[in-house]
Amino acid sequence: MSQLAQEIISAIRKVVPYEDTFVPLHEPSFQGNEWKYVKETIDSTFVSSVGKYVDRFEKDLAEFTGVKRAVAVVNGTAALHVALTLVGVKKNDEVFIPSLTFIATANAVSYCQATPHFVDSEESTLGVDPYKLKSYLKEIAIVKNDECFNKQTGRRIKAIIPMHTFGHPVDMDQLIEVCQQYHIDLIEDAAESLGSYYKGQHTGSFGKISAMSFNGNKIMTTGGGGAILTNDERLADMAKHITTTAKVPHKWEYVHDQVGFNYRMPNINAALGCAQLEKVPDFLNKKRSLAHKYSEVFKGVPGVTFKQETDYSQSNYWLNALVLDEANEGIRDEILNLSNSSNLMTRPVWMLMNHLPMFRNCPSMDISCAESLEKRIINIPSSSELGDK
Amino acid sequence: MSQLAQEIISAIRKVVPYEDTFVPLHEPSFQGNEWKYVKETIDSTFVSSVGKYVDRFEKDLAEFTGVKRAVAVVNGTAALHVALTLVGVKKNDEVFIPSLTFIATANAVSYCQATPHFVDSEESTLGVDPYKLKSYLKEIAIVKNDECFNKQTGRRIKAIIPMHTFGHPVDMDQLIEVCQQYHIDLIEDAAESLGSYYKGQHTGSFGKISAMSFNGNKIMTTGGGGAILTNDERLADMAKHITTTAKVPHKWEYVHDQVGFNYRMPNINAALGCAQLEKVPDFLNKKRSLAHKYSEVFKGVPGVTFKQETDYSQSNYWLNALVLDEANEGIRDEILNLSNSSNLMTRPVWMLMNHLPMFRNCPSMDISCAESLEKRIINIPSSSELGDK
Ligand SMILES: Cc1ncc(COP(=O)(O)O)c(C=O)c1O
Ligand SMILES: Cc1ncc(COP(=O)(O)O)c(C=O)c1O
Repeated sequence: MSQLAQEIISAIRKVVPYEDTFVPLHEPSFQGNEWKYVKETIDSTFVSSVGKYVDRFEKDLAEFTGVKRAVAVVNGTAALHVALTLVGVKKNDEVFIPSLTFIATANAVSYCQATPHFVDSEESTLGVDPYKLKSYLKEIAIVKNDECFNKQTGRRIKAIIPMHTFGHPVDMDQLIEVCQQYHIDLIEDAAESLGSYYKGQHTGSFGKISAMSFNGNKIMTTGGGGAILTNDERLADMAKHITTTAKVPHKWEYVHDQVGFNYRMPNINAALGCAQLEKVPDFLNKKRSLAHKYSEVFKGVPGVTFKQETDYSQSNYWLNALVLDEANEGIRDEILNLSNSSNLMTRPVWMLMNHLPMFRNCPSMDISCAESLEKRIINIPSSSELGDK
Repeated sequence: MSQLAQEIISAIRKVVPYEDTFVPLHEPSFQGNEWKYVKETIDSTFVSSVGKYVDRFEKDLAEFTGVKRAVAVVNGTAALHVALTLVGVKKNDEVFIPSLTFIATANAVSYCQATPHFVDSEESTLGVDPYKLKSYLKEIAIVKNDECFNKQTGRRIKAIIPMHTFGHPVDMDQLIEVCQQYHIDLIEDAAESLGSYYKGQHTGSFGKISAMSFNGNKIMTTGGGGAILTNDERLADMAKHITTTAKVPHKWEYVHDQVGFNYRMPNINAALGCAQLEKVPDFLNKKRSLAHKYSEVFKGVPGVTFKQETDYSQSNYWLNALVLDEANEGIRDEILNLSNSSNLMTRPVWMLMNHLPMFRNCPSMDISCAESLEKRIINIPSSSELGDK
């Protein structure tokens, strides 16, 4: 067995010294008003599409993230689907997404009958590399009538979805510049980055429209849930409309004016969300404290880096990550085996999207950095409560 | 003001004599283990995709409805979308649906890039008229290689979605015969018919695959939720797979083998569902008692019929409905106005699908019965608790 694998386990153990219990990767914590609010929805019978918690959750979330409007939906995947639909992604368009992301980003593009076009990530943010994207666009793209086209496929490149990996913000200033130059709409996949800031501004507030997730493994949870964020009131109204079956208000008549979705978040889930959101500042503190402890112990372990926020950003440290040096990529699975068999849950990053059968033939730039990162990233236990102890 | 409108309000008032409080159309009731089970998900932190209530709800639901397998999903709309996908509805196919249905049935067809083809309903069941369908098919359809084609449009007619309106079962024997003769797959929209039986067999167990809804206005609720029912184990496995992002089991690797969906029901919603399902027999009794009272008082009101189950079926009486005689269709809105302004919530049936802008140009048979019913149906207060008092 390699010495580095053992050193890594020992280092994690210094921060998480609970040898006898299984330590999950990420566990939610319900120590606030969760039961109070949820109980209220049951007692009032307003558990479903009617009730005050959805409105409140949307208001609270907009306030927290500093956007004009938030629209609560059934999950982050639905939020991405709606975001793409609302910026006008159409059949046969291409949409840039990182190859290093969770499957939902790519699936949402498919739901629009559009094609994901994969871009590379950079080591410092684990997200879209705006410089590399810029040179790639110079080579393959042409702008006609304020729209960007792929010269090689002839298809329109309508949008890009940067994703803030594990809570680490993408280099937004550079990316925004590229998007403006090439007339590409910006949709942020902020599913993992509630509480993460780029130069003091909350992630998810840069894009024309953005998506968040409140799945059980996220920094806060609504059971299942997500949200659409935007500063554009018109887009927010449209988001609300098409996520609630596009029903036109009427005292009793059922008129729907377009093909809509049932993507609304139920009130019982929003109640959980309101209570969780109250605790997010606390979760963020604990997660910072946990990340700080990890960064300290890993200073003493050569061959691996504990992923820290860049100096211009503040990460929520949703999932803590180790990045092995290139020389050590061969021992990733050994570390995963060793830790998982010793009560410490760890996992690799997602398989790259263009390695999956259904996306194998999609267009892609050179993604050598993502390919290297895929072999070297290991997520380690990250529950906020671990930062408390 | 018409005398009939006043007589109708008086008749409803005999059954629902609570003049001072607003009587909603349908209200859920939480008097069982709802608190207990929901609280347990919060206390255990298993509110999301992991947890025992989803499995239990699926098992309990399959048992209750008598199908081999049930797969819990995020809502009834998602269940319909998955059902259509799994029977193999493809882009440019046609799918028969009643024009008299809730928008979700038609939207689900659109999600598959297929075209709804509208069929008429019959007065006795308020659902698909199998005899009329049969003569229509004789005229427009041709079977080639065990597949049905529309001779007029050239498109394949892949499936039909009968919907059990307000809980009243469609005439299944006749419909199944037509489907077999023409090689059309049967998908039941059983969103409204949990607890409804056709010749002793539960609705939703006849189709190749069926959809249920547990929205807040249904006979039981999970906040938001739905289920896929099927007797085909292979289809059930596929349903589970594509509603959970098509992830292939692996100890840590993220491999997905097709474009899937995030349509899973969260554990917190399934906990509510388990408790509600325990109460369904009780809800059914109360609803039968309420329907019985209505049927008695409306015997004395000529010009209108209280909708009762046919002699070969058992309805759950989810939403009670009055059907005005044709001569009285002109006073529907007067009745709606009068009742809603006197604390009794009532509503008309949905606007017919082919009267909505996005479906206006879809193919349709003569739908004169549905057109007449649209002008004559009025839903009246139906909460199960009203049957108790
Ligand atoms: C990057 C990313 N995008 C999208 C999603 C989808 O969110 P959800 O699981 O709520 O559908 C997730 C989380 O699962 C995610 O991590
Ligand atoms: C006939 C019918 N089909 C489908 C649905 C869709 O269910 P859901 O609202 O859970 O998406 C409903 C209920 O809303 C319905 O009444």
